[in-house]
Amino acid sequence: MNLEEIVRAIGPLDAAAMRLARERQAKLTKPAGSLGALEELAIRVAGITGTPLPTLKEKVIITMAGDHGVTAAGVSAYPREVTAQMIYNFLNGGAAINVLARHVGARVVVVDMGVATDIVAESLLSRKIGYGTADMTKGPAMTREEALRAVETGIAVLEDEAVKGMDILGLGDMGIGNTTASSALTAVITGDAVEAVTGRGTGIDDLGLARKIHAIQAAIGVNQPDRSDPLELLAKLGGFELAGMAGVMLAAAAHRIPVVLDGFVSGAAALLAYELAPAVKEYLIASHRSVERGHTSILTHIGLTPLLDLQMRLGEGTGAALGISLTVAACKLLKEMATFEEAGVSPRSERDR
Amino acid sequence: MNLEEIVRAIGPLDAAAMRLARERQAKLTKPAGSLGALEELAIRVAGITGTPLPTLKEKVIITMAGDHGVTAAGVSAYPREVTAQMIYNFLNGGAAINVLARHVGARVVVVDMGVATDIVAESLLSRKIGYGTADMTKGPAMTREEALRAVETGIAVLEDEAVKGMDILGLGDMGIGNTTASSALTAVITGDAVEAVTGRGTGIDDLGLARKIHAIQAAIGVNQPDRSDPLELLAKLGGFELAGMAGVMLAAAAHRIPVVLDGFVSGAAALLAYELAPAVKEYLIASHRSVERGHTSILTHIGLTPLLDLQMRLGEGTGAALGISLTVAACKLLKEMATFEEAGVSPRSERDR
Repeated sequence: MNLEEIVRAIGPLDAAAMRLARERQAKLTKPAGSLGALEELAIRVAGITGTPLPTLKEKVIITMAGDHGVTAAGVSAYPREVTAQMIYNFLNGGAAINVLARHVGARVVVVDMGVATDIVAESLLSRKIGYGTADMTKGPAMTREEALRAVETGIAVLEDEAVKGMDILGLGDMGIGNTTASSALTAVITGDAVEAVTGRGTGIDDLGLARKIHAIQAAIGVNQPDRSDPLELLAKLGGFELAGMAGVMLAAAAHRIPVVLDGFVSGAAALLAYELAPAVKEYLIASHRSVERGHTSILTHIGLTPLLDLQMRLGEGTGAALGISLTVAACKLLKEMATFEEAGVSPRSERDR
Repeated sequence: MNLEEIVRAIGPLDAAAMRLARERQAKLTKPAGSLGALEELAIRVAGITGTPLPTLKEKVIITMAGDHGVTAAGVSAYPREVTAQMIYNFLNGGAAINVLARHVGARVVVVDMGVATDIVAESLLSRKIGYGTADMTKGPAMTREEALRAVETGIAVLEDEAVKGMDILGLGDMGIGNTTASSALTAVITGDAVEAVTGRGTGIDDLGLARKIHAIQAAIGVNQPDRSDPLELLAKLGGFELAGMAGVMLAAAAHRIPVVLDGFVSGAAALLAYELAPAVKEYLIASHRSVERGHTSILTHIGLTPLLDLQMRLGEGTGAALGISLTVAACKLLKEMATFEEAGVSPRSERDR
């Protein structure tokens, strides 16, 4: 489907499935509400999937990579080459996301959305929109046509992968410089100050942070993006992987697949998806709160409560992997626990009802 | 080993193993510190196990059950029979702890430390110290001899189970009325007010909560326990399963096995273990922050930071199961991730070092 069709295809949650799931929660052998956030999470997955007792068997993490012209402005602690080097690390199974994906039983799909060099590897999805974005401090990061193509490439990636089996999706990113693009998008979309939503990324020092903030302010000043036009925001301040991730999210929502977000960069992509189709919100599960400044602005803006707060800031889909495991656990509890009746357990005393 | 021997056997963390683990963290293909709490967690497990790259294969959750005479004071929303009924639910695999233990690949060991009725089941460890404790609002919950015997029974349970293979341990509890005993112990040990550490347990209403607070105050008033004598505290205000769990924790620490706590009740047992042997602290991993009032007092008193905050309050070891999964993930990251050198990834730019 193209972007317009996907946006139209995102429906509301299935209220009947949620009602059945909620009724079952009340009958399970536990005090009402005692599983906390896991109870509501399972009910929401019931609504997303349209199944009162969802089974999340096939777990997929899509990690999208791209390079950013803004790295020329000295906004990252790592050289741009690291994007491609880390892709090889992903493909060899040595990165954090590989370890965590194995831990939770998820398949990792690595997508080159626009790395600056050619990467040849059989297990990589090569969907390059360009060889890195242009430097947004000088003009638009990409053309509007490229932005749309990147989003629709994300849609196609999701649809291709979903056919192979996908009950739950996690998102991940790799791209030196992509927290800079993410902060720019976050500032414009949420209306928060650039300084308030710009963090240290992979770990820049005070001088680097000042350069980064300056670069973002310059990019916004030069490009004067129209806040009400998400594709323009994406073209002027975004990145190929950010656009692709937004497309993946929208398509997953349209196909009623729960989407587990990662940290700040996937959050910025979620902001874009939310601008393109507010109905996507109900399909998004926030895995964790990143220490990257600006992530909380994103979560607040969309209205998401993260499951974890482990002071992580790695990206790649690492938080999403842990969030997938918790979501699967929540659904297993809903499905596999015995009811009071089945287990022959007495209900609450009359006195305290 | 008996209690005295176990306390003496708890050594400090292995500093050499921790140093090696910390050095490796710095070489792994991720920005330094970007895995947040998971990095320090893996380093601590290295210190606990004395292994620079710990592998946590055999996961065990020990769930201890007991009844409480104080239920006569109307402190719970559920009748006392539920303790035994839930044990059958555990043994049939239908409780939340069964579902989560299966999810994380842990073996559940259910121990009857003092349920009020006889339970005959092959897969249950029957280690009954008594048929429920006495009503602590009228006098001591148990004798000092029973308290010691219960702790040493916990030690023996751990030692028996560890022989079968145990790389990481989770703790769980079941016992209608046991949050009342836990609040009493927490109030006396932390010095916080009874009202501040007494919550709704399985879900009592305002009147029930007032009865519960009153019962705890009565128990403390009647028993006048000596704050400096942990076995007396346990005898006067504790429970058979609380004593057993304290013994299990101490023995696990002595055998250098990481101990993942659950919520409020296992926290109260940890308070006792900490009073008996302060060195146990370094072996304790707090899985989650329970919504049960008083849990935060416990975590603060011992000095533990929980991994999760999912508004859970179920007990059984449910939080511990999730904490085990995160701890295993942390250790896998430390062991399985590639280093910068192995992966051929460039280090940080000179400019930002």
